[in-house]
Amino acid sequence: MQITGTMLIGHDDVAGTEPAFRAVDPATGGTLEPAYGGGGQAHVDAAARLAHDAFASYRAGTPARRAAFLREIGARIMGLGDVLIERAMRETGLPRARLEGERGRTVRQLELFAEVVEAGDWHGVRIDHAQPGRAPLPRADIRMRHVPVGPVAVFGASNFPLAFSVAGGDTASALAAGAPVVVKGHPAHPGTSELVGRAIRAAVQAQGLHEGVFSLLFGADHGIGLALASHPRIKAVGFTGSRSGGLALMRAAAARPEPIPVYAEMSSINPVYLLPGALKARARAVAEGFAASLLGSAGQLCTCPGLLVGLDGPDLDAFIDAAAGRIREGAPGTMLTPSIHRAYTEGVQRLSERPGVAVRARGPAPQAPNQCRAALLEARARAFIDDPEGLGQEVFGSCALILRCADEAEMLRVARSVEGQLTATLHLEPGPDDALVRALMPVLELSAGRILANGFPTGVEVCHAMVHGGPFPATSDPRGTSVGTAAILRFLRPVAYQDIPDAFLPEPLQAANPWGVPRAERR
Amino acid sequence: MQITGTMLIGHDDVAGTEPAFRAVDPATGGTLEPAYGGGGQAHVDAAARLAHDAFASYRAGTPARRAAFLREIGARIMGLGDVLIERAMRETGLPRARLEGERGRTVRQLELFAEVVEAGDWHGVRIDHAQPGRAPLPRADIRMRHVPVGPVAVFGASNFPLAFSVAGGDTASALAAGAPVVVKGHPAHPGTSELVGRAIRAAVQAQGLHEGVFSLLFGADHGIGLALASHPRIKAVGFTGSRSGGLALMRAAAARPEPIPVYAEMSSINPVYLLPGALKARARAVAEGFAASLLGSAGQLCTCPGLLVGLDGPDLDAFIDAAAGRIREGAPGTMLTPSIHRAYTEGVQRLSERPGVAVRARGPAPQAPNQCRAALLEARARAFIDDPEGLGQEVFGSCALILRCADEAEMLRVARSVEGQLTATLHLEPGPDDALVRALMPVLELSAGRILANGFPTGVEVCHAMVHGGPFPATSDPRGTSVGTAAILRFLRPVAYQDIPDAFLPEPLQAANPWGVPRAERR
Repeated sequence: MQITGTMLIGHDDVAGTEPAFRAVDPATGGTLEPAYGGGGQAHVDAAARLAHDAFASYRAGTPARRAAFLREIGARIMGLGDVLIERAMRETGLPRARLEGERGRTVRQLELFAEVVEAGDWHGVRIDHAQPGRAPLPRADIRMRHVPVGPVAVFGASNFPLAFSVAGGDTASALAAGAPVVVKGHPAHPGTSELVGRAIRAAVQAQGLHEGVFSLLFGADHGIGLALASHPRIKAVGFTGSRSGGLALMRAAAARPEPIPVYAEMSSINPVYLLPGALKARARAVAEGFAASLLGSAGQLCTCPGLLVGLDGPDLDAFIDAAAGRIREGAPGTMLTPSIHRAYTEGVQRLSERPGVAVRARGPAPQAPNQCRAALLEARARAFIDDPEGLGQEVFGSCALILRCADEAEMLRVARSVEGQLTATLHLEPGPDDALVRALMPVLELSAGRILANGFPTGVEVCHAMVHGGPFPATSDPRGTSVGTAAILRFLRPVAYQDIPDAFLPEPLQAANPWGVPRAERR
Repeated sequence: MQITGTMLIGHDDVAGTEPAFRAVDPATGGTLEPAYGGGGQAHVDAAARLAHDAFASYRAGTPARRAAFLREIGARIMGLGDVLIERAMRETGLPRARLEGERGRTVRQLELFAEVVEAGDWHGVRIDHAQPGRAPLPRADIRMRHVPVGPVAVFGASNFPLAFSVAGGDTASALAAGAPVVVKGHPAHPGTSELVGRAIRAAVQAQGLHEGVFSLLFGADHGIGLALASHPRIKAVGFTGSRSGGLALMRAAAARPEPIPVYAEMSSINPVYLLPGALKARARAVAEGFAASLLGSAGQLCTCPGLLVGLDGPDLDAFIDAAAGRIREGAPGTMLTPSIHRAYTEGVQRLSERPGVAVRARGPAPQAPNQCRAALLEARARAFIDDPEGLGQEVFGSCALILRCADEAEMLRVARSVEGQLTATLHLEPGPDDALVRALMPVLELSAGRILANGFPTGVEVCHAMVHGGPFPATSDPRGTSVGTAAILRFLRPVAYQDIPDAFLPEPLQAANPWGVPRAERR
């Protein structure tokens, strides 16, 4: 498989006509060939129209066919071999083991959605059988199922070049729902994106699907993304990235003549509550786990623990000492791009200059370009409560702020003053911490998509019960998850069929239930 | 139960401080006492804060308690007796039988949501059990359930003073989800609204719930509604009404610092496709059914059939002749308000003046104020295809436009050019119409929330499989339904719990499953 520097619009390789860009190797600062010409409005038009053309036949396909397609994408990604891993390493600075693991996760995610397609719960079938004898009026036969909303625009994330990018969770769940996908590849890893895009296209061709089921566009600036989210043929958006990027897409989608849903996963500082019983029992062990979670992938994870909240005292001191020690000696990781490194450096600087914030530990001085110098800051909880916006802003990378609370009431006040989050974590000791856990749980349920006990939020399991979502501004829409099988529900809507003769009903609603989908029936 | 002209904010009767309004009896044009002072920002604040205060305890209640509350509301509405029906008749001009039927529907709807609360599917429980032995990493125990989004603002509709108003489907589904409700009553029927509001408040008190679970506000202009949708303590909006009103709420919700979901059910012309086999077999019978559907409630139904599409020829002529005859002799119904009557009259006038549109029949000349003079218009399909916005606008009331198609291809072009709709109806004859049905179905699935065969869209069944929703501009959000038990899903969001000790899990996720909710478990 060759990297050519083109976009993939249906079956065609198309060279962009807007200003070109190249990937940068963050480990050296050098640029990588080839150049990628940016796409313009004509390319967005072409891809969106093809997706629309493909929609009718793609959504009508059998579950077996759609599942085979998802599995073939996975097989063809594996078939790219080491070329993919090596390109991704150069484009992201991420180590081989991390990328091989991420590739496995990406392929398993496709397999899981293939199983979801086959299992069929996502059809959401409900059947109210007719009651011809009901008085005063007979009841009609009414059947509900889900249909896909239409073509979906997916924006690849910088920090998961495989699992949240071209063939990542948004793409897999949209394709599983029966929606064609137009991906806007992240400019930080265009070669990786192109390789994966070619694997998807080969699967489209091998499975004999309409070419419009998948396209891949590139662009160095935000213009092409906004054009894509604004295109009348696009019916939903999946995005993982910055708050400013997500907000811009939300505005564009709301301003359309026909507004569409936007699922933007934006920012989160993932508060970790260190309850006194847990710190008394194992301050050092919790600190080890925290430091590993903070330093992994240079902290460039949506669920990186960026805020710790404990009760002032010797146990919290012991925790901070242990964590600070780990952070001072942690090997600096290369960050994904020069701009992410710059934003990180500036973010740490800005946060450490807020009133009441002190720097408690920094990682070793960088020895190479774009390395992340981890930061552990601390402040009184009062400072956060007085300035939740200033102290609660995400610094993307290994940066965490520890808050010292005067008492449990102050810990609760912190919990109530944090914005919407992807996760909230409790380190707790059953028994001594019971009352505080019971007070915190209802607060955390309303401000986070996932609540953990005695673990760390990084390492998001791809499973049926996962929620990688949460109240604004963690995401644009708290009703969705972008990880796990429930992600498919974002791209579906219900349709009811009243007294439609069996021959004209879609398969999931027919009397014979030829696809064997689960159905809730009432007579 | 007295009608006093006050708002109900928690336990308090509060007189509005903004300009007052009175209901109008549309049958006479006279005003009805008492005056209702409009609410202002302070009242919105008070109601929204109380709703927030009530949220924690209300959502934590057992299913049995919440179901008892819903049933008690129904019983107390019945307990209002004839005072309610008589006031509603005077405020709306709707006949007694219609209002008694609507009251029954409202109470059954509350009962149905009580059963939904008890059945528990809406918790959406998924459990991925821990896999401690998994390599390379163990899997945590992860459990998902739904929680309510928070207090909901409900806007009562003018045309269903009971079933889509203060204790209507939006209120019932939000309360069932565990969300406190602040209703903005429709100014067309404030007395009816107050009576029903007092019944709900009495149920709140009888059940010992927090007073903030329900409040009722009034206002003559849009200011109070926008203030309510913009209030930071309000987390979702349910609305049934005009497109302009729905769009204003969507804009207000999107412009908030924290955007929130808006479920606005706005406008629909509910196309009816008269397939040639069906017209050949029973043109006259279909025409009778159509006229009854068009004329009922003076056409003031969201699902009123406003567009008919048939193949030009003698069978369509026979249909039109029969329908025109019925419409010429149909007794004129009193419309809900003078402004709805004015908008109807102007809408018919405007539509009949579009190029290519001819008036085919009008109802008898009105004999009293605000009576609806039904209108049957016709045009070539070409005129619609060339001007879908002009000819496709809803005229709220008994007004329908019949399109004559040159051939089946033109009928399909019409189907593709209509906007998003609540419903689409096929009159079909299995056998002769098969090919055309198969061509139309995929088009209708993408543009309507409900597809019917050989019936009419008015008379929306409240059941499990119903979808009263559809693509924009029929609604603001095609993922929801405002009728039927799936309406509860609009006010919920998923939360995941990872490795949380059983004692701290919410009841639906505990090992013992004390509420006996349905759970999808995977080991």
